[in-house]
Parts: sequence; structure tokens; C-alpha cells
Amino acid sequence: MPKRVDHARRRDEIALVACKAIAEHGFARATVAQIAQTAGYTTGMVAYYFDSKQEIILAALRLILKRMDQRLQGVPGAPRAGLLEVLSEALPIDAQRRTECAFWTAFWGQLAADAHLKRLNAWVHREYRKLFERCLAEQWPESQTWPAAVQAQVLRSLITFLNGVTTSAVSSPRDWPARTQLRQLELHLLLLREWAHGAARA
Amino acid sequence: MPKRVDHARRRDEIALVACKAIAEHGFARATVAQIAQTAGYTTGMVAYYFDSKQEIILAALRLILKRMDQRLQGVPGAPRAGLLEVLSEALPIDAQRRTECAFWTAFWGQLAADAHLKRLNAWVHREYRKLFERCLAEQWPESQTWPAAVQAQVLRSLITFLNGVTTSAVSSPRDWPARTQLRQLELHLLLLREWAHGAARA
Repeated sequence: MPKRVDHARRRDEIALVACKAIAEHGFARATVAQIAQTAGYTTGMVAYYFDSKQEIILAALRLILKRMDQRLQGVPGAPRAGLLEVLSEALPIDAQRRTECAFWTAFWGQLAADAHLKRLNAWVHREYRKLFERCLAEQWPESQTWPAAVQAQVLRSLITFLNGVTTSAVSSPRDWPARTQLRQLELHLLLLREWAHGAARA
Repeated sequence: MPKRVDHARRRDEIALVACKAIAEHGFARATVAQIAQTAGYTTGMVAYYFDSKQEIILAALRLILKRMDQRLQGVPGAPRAGLLEVLSEALPIDAQRRTECAFWTAFWGQLAADAHLKRLNAWVHREYRKLFERCLAEQWPESQTWPAAVQAQVLRSLITFLNGVTTSAVSSPRDWPARTQLRQLELHLLLLREWAHGAARA
């Protein structure tokens, strides 16, 4: 009986290797051949699953999004210690998250050069926004009573902050140990919440 | 009498074209030949001024830094309307600043792939920090009486914010018209100042 191959798992495996390769070597140097070699496959095998590097990137984006979604949701039944803990899932504070953030930085850096990636970015940006919107509603239930403009401002400020720390910590890692990132996020959340309460009352 | 050539100006001209080429086409596709062609020079002429693409990048970084420094200082004798106006010089709110921010995003995206750029980044990051430190001291003179930890936290938060808007606005320009960026910066400054005053009194 032939060995059964889990194709979905293989696709994920290749996408994950691609994410790492791009995080470590940048967009241009992470070729399909190099991704295949690192994953322990032949280029032909990778070509069986993906038509192009673009398709591998799309799979990597989907995978990172899925992993972020799972982390943001947390372990079922295990209560979260608030928005700080949930959003820290998006910061480059451990090896996996550093890889993902380095991937994002490389991805953003490539957008100018690539109209296809620009379209992918519009989609992935919307999906991320939805994830953080859900976190806000769950962790700060009172936010649902705030005027729409206040909610939008808070969400935008959170995403700006997360993108800013991602970029800063990936480009200057020594200045951004995990503790510093968390302290900065904590302050940002505190300030935003106070402001939103005031703005909602006004 | 032979025509006198202003070599410093030519170097700046080439560096500026390189900045635009990288902002528009990304790091990998902005070649020395392409930069030369856009600048209206031969590749040989560019090679007369710069030994490598790396050297052109360094010149571009220096030029952007110099232009930022000049903009942050403003017109001599013309008073500035505060930190909001000064720091808006770092946001992608007009064509020149959009180009510079797109260059930064491409540059950050390339750091993983290039140890030389990483070293350049450490230097340029320090220089930028100094510029913003000076703005803070000039525009919020009371900040000089805050404890060092509060000053450092405010500076870090400002730079995180500016990097975050840069990345967000370059990757999703439609979501970030100039007005939205300025409103977001205004809110961020307001919150930070209130927090710093409270923290300094505590």
C-alpha cells in the first residue's frame, strides 16, 4: 500500500520554510530552489505544490495569519490576562514571532517593487484589522459603547503601534528586548484607554 | 577654460535619484545602471563618483538625514507651531516625504539580507534619535526637567509611532491620507505629554 501523503501539511511546511528564508535572507535572495533545499525537498517537488514564488508567499501569508489568529484566541478555557497579553502575540518577543515580524518587514519593503504583493497586502491588512477588532471587542467590552470614530481611532493607533514596534525591533533588535516592547505596549494601551473613555464621555 | 563641475552637487543628485528609484522599484530592481540612466548619466560617470551600489545607498541615507535635519530645524526666524508641526516633517504627507518614507520601508526590508546595511542602520538610527531628541528639548522645554527614564520612554514612543505610520502609510496609502496621519500624531503627542507630566510628578 503506498504511503499516504498529507498534502495540506506539506504545503504548510514549505510555506513555513519560505517565511523563515525570507525573514533571514530577504525577499530577493529567498529563491524557490533555496526554499526547497531548506525544506528538504527537490525544486520539482515544491513546483508540484506551488506554481511560483508568489504562490508560496501567499501560502506563507495565510499561514502566518492563521497562526496569529490561533495565538490571539489563546487556549480554549484558559482566561487571558487582558489586551496586553493578547496583543503581545503580535510583537517580536520570541523566536517564532521575531521570524514572523522579520518576514513582515521584508514583505513591506518589497511592496513598492511588486504590484501583485501590493494587492495581497490590501487583503492581508484587512484580515489583520479584523483580528485586532475582535480582540478589542473581547478584551475591552466597554469599547463597544464608544462612538464609531473613537473605536476606529483606537484600532488605528494600536495597529500603528504594533507596526512601529515590529519595524523598530527588527531593524534595531538590541534596543528592543522583549521587556521594553511589553512596557511600551502597556503604556500605549493605558493612554489609549484613558483617552477613549474621555472621548466617549465628551 | 574647462567647465567647472560641482562634484558634491553631482553626488547629491545621484543619491537623490537612487532614493527615488529604491522608493519606486524596491532595492533589488534599483540597479546602478538604472540609477545612472534616470539621473541622465552614463554608468561610467556614476562609477566615477561611487564604487558600488552600497556607497550610493550610504550617500542617499546621508542626504535624507541632512534634508530631515534641515526640515526639522525649519526656516531661521520663522517660529514653529510646536512639536506636531516639527514632527510632521517625518511623516509621508507630501510627495518628497512619501518618497523618503518609501525608501525607509525598502531599506528596513533589506536589512535581514545585508550585514553591511545593518551596520549602516545602527548609525543612521542613532543619528535620527539625536534629531528627535533635539526637537523634544526645543519644542517641549519642560521635558528637560523630566526624569531620564521618562524622557527616554517619550522619545522611544515617538520614534515607534513615526516608524509605525511610515510603514502603515507606505503599505496602505489609501488608509492614511495626510489628515489622518496628522490627527493620529496629534493624539499621540497629547497622550504622551499628559503621561509624562504625571510620571514626572509621581
